[in-house]
Amino acid sequence: MSERTDITLYSKLAELREHLQTQRHRLVLAESCTSGFVAAELGAIPGISEHFCGSMVVYRTATKNAWLELENAVLFDPQIGPVSAIVTKQLAEKLMQHTPEATLAASITGHLGPNAPANLDGLVFCGLLWRDSNQFTSREFRLAKPPPQDRHDFAGRRQRQMEAAALLIDFLVEELRARAHT
Amino acid sequence: MSERTDITLYSKLAELREHLQTQRHRLVLAESCTSGFVAAELGAIPGISEHFCGSMVVYRTATKNAWLELENAVLFDPQIGPVSAIVTKQLAEKLMQHTPEATLAASITGHLGPNAPANLDGLVFCGLLWRDSNQFTSREFRLAKPPPQDRHDFAGRRQRQMEAAALLIDFLVEELRARAHT
Repeated sequence: MSERTDITLYSKLAELREHLQTQRHRLVLAESCTSGFVAAELGAIPGISEHFCGSMVVYRTATKNAWLELENAVLFDPQIGPVSAIVTKQLAEKLMQHTPEATLAASITGHLGPNAPANLDGLVFCGLLWRDSNQFTSREFRLAKPPPQDRHDFAGRRQRQMEAAALLIDFLVEELRARAHT
Repeated sequence: MSERTDITLYSKLAELREHLQTQRHRLVLAESCTSGFVAAELGAIPGISEHFCGSMVVYRTATKNAWLELENAVLFDPQIGPVSAIVTKQLAEKLMQHTPEATLAASITGHLGPNAPANLDGLVFCGLLWRDSNQFTSREFRLAKPPPQDRHDFAGRRQRQMEAAALLIDFLVEELRARAHT
C-alpha cells in the first residue's frame, strides 16, 4: 500500500504489534487526510484486535464536530485551521475521552490537494497522546509526492494518502521504540 | 487494493461519486472487519469529501459499545453475535443518529479469521440505511478467499479485507443505481 515493499511494511507493522503487546497498550486513531488508510494497514495484522480499538475517520468538518466535538472556532480560525498541531491535539484528547480502554491515541490531518494553497499543499500533522502521562507529541511533515493533478487523478491522491499513512506508522513505531528503552 | 485492477476499481468509485452527487447523498460508514479499507478506497476519490462524511472503524467490542452504544446483550447473544444482519442494522441506525448530515449509512461486519469456527469463517454482512425512507437493506456474503493461515499471514488477511471492502462498494453502487432509475 505504499512504495515501500509489502515485506518492509509488514515488518514495520509486526514491530508495531510487538511494541503494543510488550508495553500493553491499546491504540485508537483519528484520521482525516488518510481516510482510514492507517486503520486499514493495522487491520491487516492478524491478532491486532487485542491492541487496536479502532479509528474515527473524520473526513468532513461536520464529522469532526459531531463525533469529536471539535469547534468551528478552531477549525476555521485563519491562524490555526484544520491542518495544525492544535487540531491533532484536540482530536487525540477527545478520542481518548470517547474510548475508555485506549491508552494511546494518534491523530493525523493534512492537505493532500488538489487545489490546496501552495504554502499548505502536502502539509501533514501527526499527534500522539499517552493516557498514563498525559503527554502529547506532534510532528509536522511535508509530503514528497506531488499533488493529484485533478479530480480524475485517483492514483495521485492515493499515493499521497499512502505516504501520509506511512509517516504516522513510522512515528508510532519510533515513539514506542523510545519507550521500550526507558 | 483488490484483485480487480485499479482501473476497474477507480471506474467503480467514480460511478459511486457520480451517484452520490446526482442523488445528493452524504454517506457515512461503520466498518468492523474491513478496518477502514472502504473509507480508504473512498478517500482516494478526489472531491469525495462533499459526499463522504467519514467512517467509524469499530474494531473491538468495547469500541462498538463506546462509540455506537451497541449492547453486549446483542453482540454476545449466541443466536445473534457480532457478525449478523441485526448488528449491521444497529450500527447503521446509531451511525445515522451520530452523523446529522448523513443521508445514507452503510455498515459491514464479518469473520475474516484465522480461527473462526468453520460455519462462520468468511461470513460477511453488509447493511444500508436510507435516512429519507428509513429503509434498511442487508446482504449476507461468503468470502471466496481462504482464511489467513496464521498470525504471520498478513497478506492472507489483507486479501480478505479487500474482498469484503469490494463487496460493500459493489452493494452501494448497485443500490444507488437502482434508485437512479426510480
